[in-house]
Amino acid sequence: MSNPTAAMLVIGDEILSGRTRDTNTNHLAQALTARGIRLMEARVVADDQPAIIAAVNALRGAWDHVFTSGGIGPTHDDITADAIAAAFGVAITHRADAMALLQAHYDRAGLPFNAARQRMARIPDGATLIDNPVSTAPGFTLGNVHVMAGVPRIFEAMVAGVLPALTGGDPLLSQSLRVNRGEGEIAGPFGALAADFPDLSMGSYPFTLNGAHGTHLVIRGTDATRLNSAMARLQDLFG
Amino acid sequence: MSNPTAAMLVIGDEILSGRTRDTNTNHLAQALTARGIRLMEARVVADDQPAIIAAVNALRGAWDHVFTSGGIGPTHDDITADAIAAAFGVAITHRADAMALLQAHYDRAGLPFNAARQRMARIPDGATLIDNPVSTAPGFTLGNVHVMAGVPRIFEAMVAGVLPALTGGDPLLSQSLRVNRGEGEIAGPFGALAADFPDLSMGSYPFTLNGAHGTHLVIRGTDATRLNSAMARLQDLFG
Repeated sequence: MSNPTAAMLVIGDEILSGRTRDTNTNHLAQALTARGIRLMEARVVADDQPAIIAAVNALRGAWDHVFTSGGIGPTHDDITADAIAAAFGVAITHRADAMALLQAHYDRAGLPFNAARQRMARIPDGATLIDNPVSTAPGFTLGNVHVMAGVPRIFEAMVAGVLPALTGGDPLLSQSLRVNRGEGEIAGPFGALAADFPDLSMGSYPFTLNGAHGTHLVIRGTDATRLNSAMARLQDLFG
Repeated sequence: MSNPTAAMLVIGDEILSGRTRDTNTNHLAQALTARGIRLMEARVVADDQPAIIAAVNALRGAWDHVFTSGGIGPTHDDITADAIAAAFGVAITHRADAMALLQAHYDRAGLPFNAARQRMARIPDGATLIDNPVSTAPGFTLGNVHVMAGVPRIFEAMVAGVLPALTGGDPLLSQSLRVNRGEGEIAGPFGALAADFPDLSMGSYPFTLNGAHGTHLVIRGTDATRLNSAMARLQDLFG
């Protein structure tokens, strides 16, 4: 497939301890699918510099884009910006444009622009800022890595700012058919159909409703004509 | 820390396309934390054999336990068991005990035990079965890899079956304090406190309520006495 590829990297102890449920991966997955960019893998790592560096370097080498979430706030456990700089082997400083944005924000709010808040202006050399319309403290893009906040409202706003500038692909289309039979009953003919359409991806997702088994059959691809042909065959089989 | 470590591997195109929201990672994270096992990383990969093999081999080499979710049903896109066998370099066959379990299950239901359903009895050589009290088709443990279903109700039942047999560690305790101040205001003294307790993990999680900023401060560790000492200091600072 010629669609651009991407990976998600969620950074944060609170996800791995179970305290917080990650919702950013699902949001990004849906946004990328709509844009024709294929999410190939996702990872969650702790607030641990070697773990972040290893994951960032593995993912940015493997895929066209990497999106990160978390660890760019003002507290001691916010180490993402430093880890990204280390992963790329570049310096990190309090950058003038980010300092000016934040200074103006805290002046407006009548709050001191203290050392902790100034930490949020630390940006690796060579990065471009990502706008934060919610709370000002910017994300940044360095190479093919887009570094964003973990708070879902801010993450989502940053994704909305970044995606339009990326080259998308043919939209990833999907159609589905709900069948009132269990997977084990439809698996044979469904697998044979999938073998006839190697350019499409076909998946089956079982459910139970009032004690009865059913299956959602989903066909994904970028060619609407092929998708329609496969769906017609699926309807003939199970519709 | 001497607690055992673990990783989660979610397998499935439907998570990466955004169609389905993964809830199994959060469930496992909470269950492991209660058992004193530290979840160190999580990954999501597609229904793609090379991707599954690479992830399984990376994770089983790095951590004490690996838990996988998804891809063990009867359809053509259920390739996890074969991928695990390939990752370990062992054969995979329709195993007699799994065949007998499933035969009895489908006999009771009055359904044919067809080729698709028999696929769910394919178990890598050397594995032990994981009980599936919901829908019979078993998971399995091979080496330090626990292979489980993706359907949350079944995944959760399998986790409940597997965890008691694993060696846990000291329970991972946490205490938290809610502070009606933004992160930028508390970051300095909170970071200094964290530096005084290098054996504990301290994190801060901002929230907004009715337009006002607040922060949850969380302290995690295994030594209740140290946790209490740190919480007392935290109360003095912000309580």
